[in-house]
Amino acid sequence: MATWTEERIRVRYGETDMMGHAYYANYLYWLEQARGAWCRDRGFTYKQLEEAGYKLPVVETWIRYKGEIKYDDLVTVRVRLGETKRSAIKFEYEIVAPGGDRVLTEAYTWHVFVGGEMKAAPLTGEFKEMLARDPADWAQAE
Amino acid sequence: MATWTEERIRVRYGETDMMGHAYYANYLYWLEQARGAWCRDRGFTYKQLEEAGYKLPVVETWIRYKGEIKYDDLVTVRVRLGETKRSAIKFEYEIVAPGGDRVLTEAYTWHVFVGGEMKAAPLTGEFKEMLARDPADWAQAE
Amino acid sequence: MATWTEERIRVRYGETDMMGHAYYANYLYWLEQARGAWCRDRGFTYKQLEEAGYKLPVVETWIRYKGEIKYDDLVTVRVRLGETKRSAIKFEYEIVAPGGDRVLTEAYTWHVFVGGEMKAAPLTGEFKEMLARDPADWAQAE
Amino acid sequence: MATWTEERIRVRYGETDMMGHAYYANYLYWLEQARGAWCRDRGFTYKQLEEAGYKLPVVETWIRYKGEIKYDDLVTVRVRLGETKRSAIKFEYEIVAPGGDRVLTEAYTWHVFVGGEMKAAPLTGEFKEMLARDPADWAQAE
Repeated sequence: MATWTEERIRVRYGETDMMGHAYYANYLYWLEQARGAWCRDRGFTYKQLEEAGYKLPVVETWIRYKGEIKYDDLVTVRVRLGETKRSAIKFEYEIVAPGGDRVLTEAYTWHVFVGGEMKAAPLTGEFKEMLARDPADWAQAE
Repeated sequence: MATWTEERIRVRYGETDMMGHAYYANYLYWLEQARGAWCRDRGFTYKQLEEAGYKLPVVETWIRYKGEIKYDDLVTVRVRLGETKRSAIKFEYEIVAPGGDRVLTEAYTWHVFVGGEMKAAPLTGEFKEMLARDPADWAQAE
Repeated sequence: MATWTEERIRVRYGETDMMGHAYYANYLYWLEQARGAWCRDRGFTYKQLEEAGYKLPVVETWIRYKGEIKYDDLVTVRVRLGETKRSAIKFEYEIVAPGGDRVLTEAYTWHVFVGGEMKAAPLTGEFKEMLARDPADWAQAE
Repeated sequence: MATWTEERIRVRYGETDMMGHAYYANYLYWLEQARGAWCRDRGFTYKQLEEAGYKLPVVETWIRYKGEIKYDDLVTVRVRLGETKRSAIKFEYEIVAPGGDRVLTEAYTWHVFVGGEMKAAPLTGEFKEMLARDPADWAQAE
């Protein structure tokens, strides 16, 4: 099974709306931050990936909002690699309340792997290797 | 068939990211703006709905990002009522390029109907009537 | 005196916070949208300016929040050119309530004029001419 | 002199814009997060303040953008109490690059102290005491 990476996020005041909860769009910022932590856990940063000429633009997102998330809540976003296809990868997410036993949100995002000119490309062997890394073998990237 | 409401949106500079496209979270702001226009087309505003003690918090979103959307693009967000359940409703969306013939984004959002204490409640008869309105019969709400 | 350009903006739900007002950061999106309208009023778009190799990154902002702005409010953002320096320009703003007689917000932003490599450059003659245009002489840019 | 509180912030991808820097509005989210840390350093949270019936809505902001801040940068936001008036307080900020020797941003924000009905009120003695706390005497609030 793919290993989860966990990223703790404190909800900002500006991420709430007048209903008193975190606004539904802001979850996608948190998922992005968790993907960044996922890369770091495997010894590289998403920034380095872009500097090497690759990008992972999103092509599909799905979110199930199950429990309330409010200002100043310190939630944990769990992310792991789901499926990989020839030129696309899927990340799966859970947002859990402090303590970790209650899942507040479920989500996934699909990303295509593109080279310099925003065209989908097959995952390179090097990138496949990076995806398959075990965090236990890697120091977290700076 | 449910009638589409169309809302034109000009992409803001701050809605882009360093990849040069609109950031994936910002689409959810546009869908919200389109839902607001959808209500107006039927003679009420979402604000009035909340003032009357009802809310429509989101419980699920799905977005398929198909074509590029960039700064200053003037896109059209089309929204219509999809399914309705006992205490939930679904909106369906398409974002189309100028001209209207090319679908850049497909999406849906599910919302529960809640009363004053954030508990799901059956759709009231009055609200069902509002959902079923034909825009042709209604002046757009101020 | 410099001519005001006016841009009407409907406050989004996601722009509010749990205090029930528009969150203070979102005003800067509205000012940006108003600058875009200011350019259009003078026959060009900010996008065209960037495509021509110029940028106007912000170096200073000031905002005075005087009156409440809430969800679904339809405010008018007024913007005009303030001072110009050798390689910098200032925009001045007022956000007014519907009717136009009550100023809810005052603001200014300073921008430097930069060429291709993000270095400040003297305003070119062509750009000075664009800044000085009278909207009455120009069709709004597409 | 007032004691600085420091809060480290990793710049999100969604906080950048197509110019490749952090978009100018997002700095205000970081200042808010730093104010939250400032409260924690003094043994309370801003959330608790609101729960006790007080709010600190912003009335003025000023930001001087001096150095570039980009995606994935790990900046430090320093915040301290500036002036206090009868019913208003000022926070002062610096955003510094890793290492802490280079100031990328200077800013201040003014806030009014309001009671339950969004009317300005004199700072209470209890709140004055909280503002004057020395972080060394307080465990950080949860």
